[in-house]
Amino acid sequence: MAEFMTETEQRSPAVPHPGTAGNTRGRQRETAHGHTGPGEGTESTEGAEGQEAAALLERTRTLVDPELRAAVGSLPGSMRRIALYHFGWQHADGTPAAGNGGKAIRPALVLAAAAALGGPAARTAAVPAAVAVELVHNFTLLHDDVLDRDTSRRHRPTAWTVFGAADAILAGDALLALALRLLAEDTHPADGPAAARLATCVVELCAGEHTDTDMEHRAPHEVTLDEVLAMAEAKTGALLGCACALGALYAGAGPQEVAALDGFGRQAGLAFQLIDDVIGIWGDPRRTGKPAGADLAARKKSLPVVAALSSGTEAAAELAELYGKPYVAGDAEGIARTALAVERAGGRDWAQAEAADRMARAVQELARAVPDAEAAGGLLALAEFVTRRTS
Amino acid sequence: MAEFMTETEQRSPAVPHPGTAGNTRGRQRETAHGHTGPGEGTESTEGAEGQEAAALLERTRTLVDPELRAAVGSLPGSMRRIALYHFGWQHADGTPAAGNGGKAIRPALVLAAAAALGGPAARTAAVPAAVAVELVHNFTLLHDDVLDRDTSRRHRPTAWTVFGAADAILAGDALLALALRLLAEDTHPADGPAAARLATCVVELCAGEHTDTDMEHRAPHEVTLDEVLAMAEAKTGALLGCACALGALYAGAGPQEVAALDGFGRQAGLAFQLIDDVIGIWGDPRRTGKPAGADLAARKKSLPVVAALSSGTEAAAELAELYGKPYVAGDAEGIARTALAVERAGGRDWAQAEAADRMARAVQELARAVPDAEAAGGLLALAEFVTRRTS
Repeated sequence: MAEFMTETEQRSPAVPHPGTAGNTRGRQRETAHGHTGPGEGTESTEGAEGQEAAALLERTRTLVDPELRAAVGSLPGSMRRIALYHFGWQHADGTPAAGNGGKAIRPALVLAAAAALGGPAARTAAVPAAVAVELVHNFTLLHDDVLDRDTSRRHRPTAWTVFGAADAILAGDALLALALRLLAEDTHPADGPAAARLATCVVELCAGEHTDTDMEHRAPHEVTLDEVLAMAEAKTGALLGCACALGALYAGAGPQEVAALDGFGRQAGLAFQLIDDVIGIWGDPRRTGKPAGADLAARKKSLPVVAALSSGTEAAAELAELYGKPYVAGDAEGIARTALAVERAGGRDWAQAEAADRMARAVQELARAVPDAEAAGGLLALAEFVTRRTS
Repeated sequence: MAEFMTETEQRSPAVPHPGTAGNTRGRQRETAHGHTGPGEGTESTEGAEGQEAAALLERTRTLVDPELRAAVGSLPGSMRRIALYHFGWQHADGTPAAGNGGKAIRPALVLAAAAALGGPAARTAAVPAAVAVELVHNFTLLHDDVLDRDTSRRHRPTAWTVFGAADAILAGDALLALALRLLAEDTHPADGPAAARLATCVVELCAGEHTDTDMEHRAPHEVTLDEVLAMAEAKTGALLGCACALGALYAGAGPQEVAALDGFGRQAGLAFQLIDDVIGIWGDPRRTGKPAGADLAARKKSLPVVAALSSGTEAAAELAELYGKPYVAGDAEGIARTALAVERAGGRDWAQAEAADRMARAVQELARAVPDAEAAGGLLALAEFVTRRTS
């Protein structure tokens, strides 16, 4: 089934990063939709940036986990049980579990942004905002898994498959309320603007998920590239941007710095999504943990596919025809032909160039908000960490 | 089918209220579950309190509707469309509708509480809190209708039956975020405590809905009266209490007054639920808009039923047996026997006495927070309005 991968596997990664040569611990993708967002799987921590990012993530977990657990622990029993399972802190039967609640990328961005603009004191002050962002992220995961009918998350059955859709929806609602309660109970001068910004972001996340579920019911030719880009920005970029903006607010930054850091997170999020979509087609199954071309088999309207379909090329017509028929289980040759059509129609090149462009924009926004390279180092390392993908 | 109603219809109302004699416009119940909460249907506005309540509700709508519509209007198109339909301001095709967004009982409680403790200025200041409470209420309606599979709300198809479950869930999420954003953007000294209290209430609402859906899957004898009372308090009482508490906070009231007004709303909410459940069994179909004994046909574990089942009487055993078998469509005699068993087991008397007791407690709490009878008049009128039921 992976036969058609040989050629494409030998190509260079979408966005070159230093230090990726020795990577043997590729990130595993987790959902059929590829909109899991960064930080949900097992990422590489090789290389200098990787090590800096790993240290930031480790420190974030040390700062954030106690407050996150306390917040979840404050829920009534029924809601707490589902949340504890979802975060990986309990098994379905309520016994303690080692826990893999994700990499805490978003809280790390909050704290790194606060530290970049306000130093260590701002980082400590921003912990409630970091916890709130992580709670909102997990609210979206709980709801989106129900709405997308995804059955696996962080290598375990999704909460709704264990507790039912109703309880997963309710637990998600509770996490959202908890997130905004944390900011409302905070006494930092930034808590009001931060809560308003986070709530606005939630509305954008909802609109993004709406577009995503809506697009599934439309024919491929009815979906435009602008729509898919807007959806990816709303579903993935918005919360990464919001995380950075909240960190800036807690550092007392002005509107321009806050907007620039929001832009940094958004563009890095889009770069991540583009690379994630490339891997969803050409990724090594041994590294992605998914069958080769799984996104193509699911007829997913991912960014490279929609770019290819709208290219006006002969290959686009062939791709449209292939996508018009349902996938027949085990048809490796059909998947290989589809992947080749996307590539010949320019979908892969476009996605790689667009990802590089988005990363460049992210770096520009970062420089605008944090001109000092050393202060910006943490945020840059995190952005490179989430977009570093070789498989 | 309404034959067995004749005897019970002639009984006195559950809680006697002055001015109900001329009532010819009975309230219509709306869901199969009877947890719609007060203010969703067409209530009587006869009598002195009724007229005062009607005036308060009218003034509330004048103050709240513009801000509520502006908040909903700020949503992205996809979410806005669903919300506009849900509030009754648009038809499913997007054309304008006359709108019946409910009676605005909860925002009226916010404003009446603010006015009772802080006068007209506090009432005006509390409008954002009133809008936030109404948004939270409608978030719960959108989600609960999906989770309960209810198909009708305010005499129209529920949003999920029109737009799909996914979009109704997302629109609900967006309304919840919008509610907390409104408070975060407010500049009143009470906005932080109010947001924290409202978010805490949302968690309680979620836990209550969880208990409700969970109880549906359990055998009647596995459900205790304490559980059903706690569920009713969480699902119905909590938000009425929170509405009053938010009004008090916006009036600058101290913790004791806030707690007392929360208690007032909670107890009034429980009184409402008890009476609603009595009407769900013995209500006049011409007035409820539902078939006689609909709650019994649905084998609903309502408060009078669970009280009857746990009475240890011979009638309780008969009721348990009747409830153990599914309802056969059109079996009016079976419904009549079931209603009689609930009554003989003391379920009806208990519910009526409990409702009266809860109203008495509500009045006590109100007197504690607002000793001046004239200042308390508006809140009292609203409480009597939501619990006044003759059918």
